[in-house]
Amino acid sequence: MRQALHLLHIQTKAKGLVEIGGKISLWLREQNISTGLLTIFCRHTSASLLIQENADPDVRTDLETFFETIAPEDSKRYVHRTEGPDDMPAHIRAALLQTQLAVPIALGRMALGTWQGIYLFEHRRAPHRREVVLHLLGD
Amino acid sequence: MRQALHLLHIQTKAKGLVEIGGKISLWLREQNISTGLLTIFCRHTSASLLIQENADPDVRTDLETFFETIAPEDSKRYVHRTEGPDDMPAHIRAALLQTQLAVPIALGRMALGTWQGIYLFEHRRAPHRREVVLHLLGD
Amino acid sequence: MRQALHLLHIQTKAKGLVEIGGKISLWLREQNISTGLLTIFCRHTSASLLIQENADPDVRTDLETFFETIAPEDSKRYVHRTEGPDDMPAHIRAALLQTQLAVPIALGRMALGTWQGIYLFEHRRAPHRREVVLHLLGD
Repeated sequence: MRQALHLLHIQTKAKGLVEIGGKISLWLREQNISTGLLTIFCRHTSASLLIQENADPDVRTDLETFFETIAPEDSKRYVHRTEGPDDMPAHIRAALLQTQLAVPIALGRMALGTWQGIYLFEHRRAPHRREVVLHLLGD
Repeated sequence: MRQALHLLHIQTKAKGLVEIGGKISLWLREQNISTGLLTIFCRHTSASLLIQENADPDVRTDLETFFETIAPEDSKRYVHRTEGPDDMPAHIRAALLQTQLAVPIALGRMALGTWQGIYLFEHRRAPHRREVVLHLLGD
Repeated sequence: MRQALHLLHIQTKAKGLVEIGGKISLWLREQNISTGLLTIFCRHTSASLLIQENADPDVRTDLETFFETIAPEDSKRYVHRTEGPDDMPAHIRAALLQTQLAVPIALGRMALGTWQGIYLFEHRRAPHRREVVLHLLGD
């Protein structure tokens, strides 16, 4: 049984979903692990990880609209306002979504379903350089 | 340290919670692992995993009602409508709930609390055959 | 590769966030694991785990308000009422938040970002003694 650690940098442009599964698969292939467990960990409280449909981009649009509605930029609702109107909604979205994902590895690949893609969900308006830790364990 | 992988098939009938902890426990017992980590991974973006109260069935009713209300079948809200009125709400529920769960194994059993059960939450109206990957690691 | 298991007891006073990262770090230091994977598991369906901002306490206030609003104590909404007005909202919050977290270990420490703290989110009004299982795997 072996372990590997890697730090992935993801540049975001604005609020929204960024596909990161391709970069993860590339790194995974180099590790030569056939069976194992991959943990994906986002080092931020205003961005999240999400496994979602990778086919129709309208799904991403509707997801973004949903989270915009459930945690709106509306400073009257929040006590925490010092970091801009998009900061507290970002923390709420991060609580509702995932900071970390565990994905089994089978035959050297993530055991995702056909329609599952892996995304980083940026919750801030401004571009950010996000850090995602990959931890791999297996044979 | 050993690993084991298994693919569980769960037949759903309609929207709602299906208990899957019993099937997982049965498989776990055969693996002869005393201490370890179990990862449960749902290979779909319109069904979720959930650890919830296993006692009063009213809790499941109220959970189903809550998710029906927060992400209703209302085509006016969504751009993605090609797969039926229940598809986009299913993706939103999948974002709010879990695609994967990690459960420590102690004394050969999942270290669940007394009132915790493990459920697959079907978000589509029609019956589906769902795939759940089990990954086990331990001694 | 080694494993370690530990049961952490957390006393809560009322609804709200309790910092537990300090206790976890203390235990982690004693295990002498440099690279690995830590799983944190909450054995309850009316309390959750959450990674959130550890700086401005106003963030915690706003998070508490958000979850009070999205799943209010309003007995007219719920069928499950036998365990008090705060019980069904507690189960809904537990479904929206996390029961378990997986955190990579690098250089003997949790690979958290600068602003990330680990919290137990108590969803019941009354004080509770909560059990959190720690599972560690690594070298």
